[in-house]
Amino acid sequence: MSFSGLQTLVEALRALPGIGPKSAQRIAYHLLQSDRIGALRLGKALVYAAEQMKNCTRCNTFTEVGICETCLDPDRDATLLCIVETPVDQNRVEQTLTFKGFYFVLMGHLSPLDGVGPDEIYFEQLIRRATDGVVKEVVLATSFTNEGEATAYYLTQVLKSRGLEVSRLARGVPVGAELEYVDPETIARAVLDRRVL
Amino acid sequence: MSFSGLQTLVEALRALPGIGPKSAQRIAYHLLQSDRIGALRLGKALVYAAEQMKNCTRCNTFTEVGICETCLDPDRDATLLCIVETPVDQNRVEQTLTFKGFYFVLMGHLSPLDGVGPDEIYFEQLIRRATDGVVKEVVLATSFTNEGEATAYYLTQVLKSRGLEVSRLARGVPVGAELEYVDPETIARAVLDRRVL
Ligand SMILES: [Zn+2]
Ligand SMILES: [Zn+2]
Repeated sequence: MSFSGLQTLVEALRALPGIGPKSAQRIAYHLLQSDRIGALRLGKALVYAAEQMKNCTRCNTFTEVGICETCLDPDRDATLLCIVETPVDQNRVEQTLTFKGFYFVLMGHLSPLDGVGPDEIYFEQLIRRATDGVVKEVVLATSFTNEGEATAYYLTQVLKSRGLEVSRLARGVPVGAELEYVDPETIARAVLDRRVL
Repeated sequence: MSFSGLQTLVEALRALPGIGPKSAQRIAYHLLQSDRIGALRLGKALVYAAEQMKNCTRCNTFTEVGICETCLDPDRDATLLCIVETPVDQNRVEQTLTFKGFYFVLMGHLSPLDGVGPDEIYFEQLIRRATDGVVKEVVLATSFTNEGEATAYYLTQVLKSRGLEVSRLARGVPVGAELEYVDPETIARAVLDRRVL
């Protein structure tokens, strides 16, 4: 009875990915014993985010307002739309300073075995966004995993059939890599995709 | 600006032990994308626990009321007081059904190098509890680590000097263990502490 607030917390901590019952208990004790301020701050941040965060109506990333900052940036090239799996991936592309267009965040990738079909990656919303009449080229920046590649393949078919130019991040030998340690598949792809200088 | 609720959450997640910036970001996205209900439940549990959980005025474990359930149990032997490092350790002892007395939870162990001295393990409160005139034997159930042993040694001196009987959990070969795989130190201790049958 008097233990219930703690038990509730231990069980609620299981919502965190990869946290089993033992870790949950250890974390709960740690927070209560040594970091009440951190626990309170985290609790409030979770409640706020869970209640307030929406998906941007244009690019689908997380935002507290209707349209995110990036989508409202007037200095971007509206003819370019880069498709990424997650907001983290968007940040990775953005940090390279090589892309000056807009984004669309799928929040995942196609994975039929896990029940993730087109609906789960916001397919209809993506099509509406890509066919706004201004976008000319869609840059596919999904991961080079099996799922990311399958997603890119699927989107390529659909977007091309709608008259859009579709491109994909180049594959090849990573910058700085010693060829000796690069896997044969990557080298094969780099040979096939070699650039004429 | 519109990203601030998410950034706040990512930073707040760093309060969790062992969570770096990348994991914090991944957890935040996972919760927002796939488990809003879990995020909200966890947030509320954290706020509640951080604001409401106190330490039991008798045994020092976490409780929402002044004195915890265990300390209010009239069927326990008030002459026995078991000292443990954490509430988890208390549960471990309790589950064995071999101890019917009361507990005191240190919420840690002595660790001078980490700045954990007697004050940090509620030494004064422990002494008050152990010298209530009813407790006769104090059972030291701190861990058999260096810190746990040092804590037990320190408490033994102090409690004995106050006229209390002090005992320690037995060390020896774990039940079910094949001798071949038991470390020499444990076997040495088991030989020295051998029981006359
Ligand atoms: Zn947006
Ligand atoms: Zn108590």
